Amino acid sequence: MNDSVAGNDRPEHSQGGTYTVEGQEFVRDQRYIPTRITRDAVDGFPVEPGRYRLVAARACPWANRSIIVRRLLGLEDVISLGTPGPTHDERSWTFDLDPDGRDPVLGIERLQEAYFARDPEYPRGITVPALVDTQDGAVVTNDFAQMTLDLSTEWAEFHRPGAPQLIPQDPTERAEMDAVMQEVYTEVNNGVYRCGFAGSQEAYDEAYARLFTALDRLEDQLSGRRFLMGERITEADVRLFTTLVRFDAVYHGHFKCNRNKLTEMPALWGYARDLFQTPGFGDTVDFGQIKEHYYRVHTDINPTGIVPAGPDLTGWTTAHGRESFGGDPWGGGTPPEPVSAR
Amino acid sequence: MNDSVAGNDRPEHSQGGTYTVEGQEFVRDQRYIPTRITRDAVDGFPVEPGRYRLVAARACPWANRSIIVRRLLGLEDVISLGTPGPTHDERSWTFDLDPDGRDPVLGIERLQEAYFARDPEYPRGITVPALVDTQDGAVVTNDFAQMTLDLSTEWAEFHRPGAPQLIPQDPTERAEMDAVMQEVYTEVNNGVYRCGFAGSQEAYDEAYARLFTALDRLEDQLSGRRFLMGERITEADVRLFTTLVRFDAVYHGHFKCNRNKLTEMPALWGYARDLFQTPGFGDTVDFGQIKEHYYRVHTDINPTGIVPAGPDLTGWTTAHGRESFGGDPWGGGTPPEPVSAR
Repeated sequence: MNDSVAGNDRPEHSQGGTYTVEGQEFVRDQRYIPTRITRDAVDGFPVEPGRYRLVAARACPWANRSIIVRRLLGLEDVISLGTPGPTHDERSWTFDLDPDGRDPVLGIERLQEAYFARDPEYPRGITVPALVDTQDGAVVTNDFAQMTLDLSTEWAEFHRPGAPQLIPQDPTERAEMDAVMQEVYTEVNNGVYRCGFAGSQEAYDEAYARLFTALDRLEDQLSGRRFLMGERITEADVRLFTTLVRFDAVYHGHFKCNRNKLTEMPALWGYARDLFQTPGFGDTVDFGQIKEHYYRVHTDINPTGIVPAGPDLTGWTTAHGRESFGGDPWGGGTPPEPVSAR
Repeated sequence: MNDSVAGNDRPEHSQGGTYTVEGQEFVRDQRYIPTRITRDAVDGFPVEPGRYRLVAARACPWANRSIIVRRLLGLEDVISLGTPGPTHDERSWTFDLDPDGRDPVLGIERLQEAYFARDPEYPRGITVPALVDTQDGAVVTNDFAQMTLDLSTEWAEFHRPGAPQLIPQDPTERAEMDAVMQEVYTEVNNGVYRCGFAGSQEAYDEAYARLFTALDRLEDQLSGRRFLMGERITEADVRLFTTLVRFDAVYHGHFKCNRNKLTEMPALWGYARDLFQTPGFGDTVDFGQIKEHYYRVHTDINPTGIVPAGPDLTGWTTAHGRESFGGDPWGGGTPPEPVSAR
């Protein structure tokens, strides 16, 4: 994923900070390490409390997704969290926020080291989120989409009491959610990148139209229901949230997704605030790191590296009124406890 | 003026599209050709209908100021208007919007030619607005601040019937307005540029704080009165308007003036819409040219040259409710006629 990637595998990454290719639309490299951690250890990696470390930069929306799901499911004591800083160079995310610049569990300075422990010739981008095996310090998987689904299903026995069911058990509902998530991914999560990393006016114009068509559709849907799948929070909400929470802070200006701010779409803005104020969502968000990441890493679209002081964020904690739709966000469960130091 | 300038006089203009200087704050070069066109022709240039041509790009806020004042005072038949296109190269604004790429009156392709007719060694930036003598094709003045004041005073005998008094005749009021205009200039008109062309994070942060301090003060003032000087439109309003009308379209994103949009400051947004909907103001504004200019010319802060499709502009024509403050915008005068082809 381009904003969560550091690496030299692709033409657009052959130089640090180069994310646009002149004349071309942005196409995301979707090749990840597909190894899964499962109960039956079919790929050689069993679920096992305390064995794996989630490496996830708070700045990155794809990594943020995994941090939220880990929180909602109460897996903090089961899978530890390492957090690289918001910026990275062309080669790797780094643990520059940690006291001595090293991840305290893995003992490495650069996430690249964990990728090379898996494959000394690892040819693609060094991305977050990544699950690393603490037994040998090697990356098990960086397949962000499968990762959170597995946290819900494969790790179920370790969920906290009261953890929400983020994936519907009913097959029809599940299929519906998969379709919603597919649209959220292609049109919104990746749609903002298609705007921001467009290499031509035509590619940008097309990306902008696609993005706001999708946002208008979501605005319409969320005018009639509290969450994407109805009355309770699901994985689909996690996925939409991580883009919405970054919208006004970075996508609106930096990626030119500027038909309007999120705050100008009443249902989406209420929905995003509702989630932000829900334990497990807003408490994973660091707006400072988010802005720092986008404005400092993408030097080809912001060569000065200057990070905007805005936007005013006070609106995020204002009343959203979405409780009036009724229902229970937790589907009979409970919110996670406040964030610990873990 | 940096966005209305093309030229190689200053370090920051030594390369096309370079407006920021690393590590430095933005300082505007304020040296202009001070020659005045007056009734007594003290500088050798008498007021004379049909003799001078105003060269003013619609994209540029400083040029926009002169176009608005010319319209409000009804000087269209007295001083003709030439309009360079929204973009320019490092050397000059060009008449690329005119049928054969030449200004139909001056016969030149590049505004630089009129500057060189005045001084073959002209050392500074080629700026708009410029008043050009059609007798010899040479620039008389590019002193944008004096220019509009002179349109009000020196050209008074040629004003249309019902033209507003843009400069108060009472000396105390005039002094008050000069103070307001000074603040509008340093804090707002130039304040947005200080944000956008900051060469360091520190310079930007300081510029941002200054800008929004001023906007908050203006928001407060305009919550209690219809126009800056009270019940009628003055030159001060023209000067504030040209920055406000560009705020969401370019300054918010491109210049990182992003604490909030203009639309999020109720009094300023109502005030700006009130003026926009007043003949002589909105009818001089071309949002397409404005966006094209900023996003394509400043290649050091927008290297891709991609022009955002947003923002949604429909709000500009919505009801503003500012009539409830009472008073008469024209001070007993009348609005100008609709724009003619002149």
